[in-house]
Amino acid sequence: MNATATLNDHIRDGTAIYERSFAIIRDEADLSRFSEGEADVAIRMIHASGMVEAARHFVFGAGVCDVARQALQAGAPILCDAEMVARGITRARLPADNEVICTLRDMRVPELANKIGNTRSAAALELWRDRMAGAVVAIGNAPTALFHLLSMIDDGAPKPAAILGMPVGFVGAAESKEELANNPRGIPFAIIRGRLGGSAMTAAALNALARPGI
Amino acid sequence: MNATATLNDHIRDGTAIYERSFAIIRDEADLSRFSEGEADVAIRMIHASGMVEAARHFVFGAGVCDVARQALQAGAPILCDAEMVARGITRARLPADNEVICTLRDMRVPELANKIGNTRSAAALELWRDRMAGAVVAIGNAPTALFHLLSMIDDGAPKPAAILGMPVGFVGAAESKEELANNPRGIPFAIIRGRLGGSAMTAAALNALARPGI
Repeated sequence: MNATATLNDHIRDGTAIYERSFAIIRDEADLSRFSEGEADVAIRMIHASGMVEAARHFVFGAGVCDVARQALQAGAPILCDAEMVARGITRARLPADNEVICTLRDMRVPELANKIGNTRSAAALELWRDRMAGAVVAIGNAPTALFHLLSMIDDGAPKPAAILGMPVGFVGAAESKEELANNPRGIPFAIIRGRLGGSAMTAAALNALARPGI
Repeated sequence: MNATATLNDHIRDGTAIYERSFAIIRDEADLSRFSEGEADVAIRMIHASGMVEAARHFVFGAGVCDVARQALQAGAPILCDAEMVARGITRARLPADNEVICTLRDMRVPELANKIGNTRSAAALELWRDRMAGAVVAIGNAPTALFHLLSMIDDGAPKPAAILGMPVGFVGAAESKEELANNPRGIPFAIIRGRLGGSAMTAAALNALARPGI
């Protein structure tokens, strides 16, 4: 049971708060279908969302934790669809001072979006091409970005090492994630089925893969 | 009902995606207890979370939408506890080129945290003091920050115009938000009861207050 916290009497130590949060999550969440590595990622995703029930929607494709960890340790860049995802990645956890790249605000993006007839979030991925090979992709916002990533790969773009596909929302989010899970194109992946997702859970997953534990 | 979206056949127009998303939310969410202004904010918060059910946990204190809107229009700074909240605020929506301030990474914060025996998220608020009067506060991450804000106000710090208190998590989140709702100290507020919250919903609420509609 959670301790009662009040204005004058609540935990003020960051590490203690993490430890207690993770203990509550382990106590309440059903993590039984996850490997130890997957559970570590799941706990941090639950922590970011405040929802133990979210765990039932997490899907980890075969090998994704090991592959993503190894890629990050080997210095893979991290490609993010949204500034919030990029900002949520804790630089101090990254094992190889990995580059965190978000091209959404690049000045070329609005014109690219017009040219390809897609959202700016999708068009921004066109600027990833020379960094995609072996990268870890973290899509936490736009379904159109995840759909476009898969189209680019189908059209011959270099394959990332792993894809965290966790866009949130009501239009295309569920479908884009099912497309990835149903046909991962040989790329290890993690998704959150349905509408749930978002920058916080995506960054949390990446942070867990970058360095296990608190 | 949601249209089926596929890799080759999904909506690629950003505005159309927003419109469809908001229509789905209006169709599915129970917004009946909200004013029109509150519903506008609630829809954007639901949109950011992917959960129509979240709406039942939203509490808007009297006047918060009008007061926050007016403050922003008058140029109030926006004080954020986390970089992700700050990054999620759409600058183009701000009515007066408002400053968006997050002091978490200020070099003085680690020492301040030691000095006051609190988290860095809480200590960072000590650097808000000369900007607090009339500001719009957006706390979307740390319960310790919300608790500390209220303590600072109790100790005589200048009062913000409005407080969005939406930290997420398992330790102190629910309690810090209840503390604000039970004793708002004369400050209009909005909270999400319980564990739910986070940077995306908080930034979404601020973005809705900054400019209504899509």
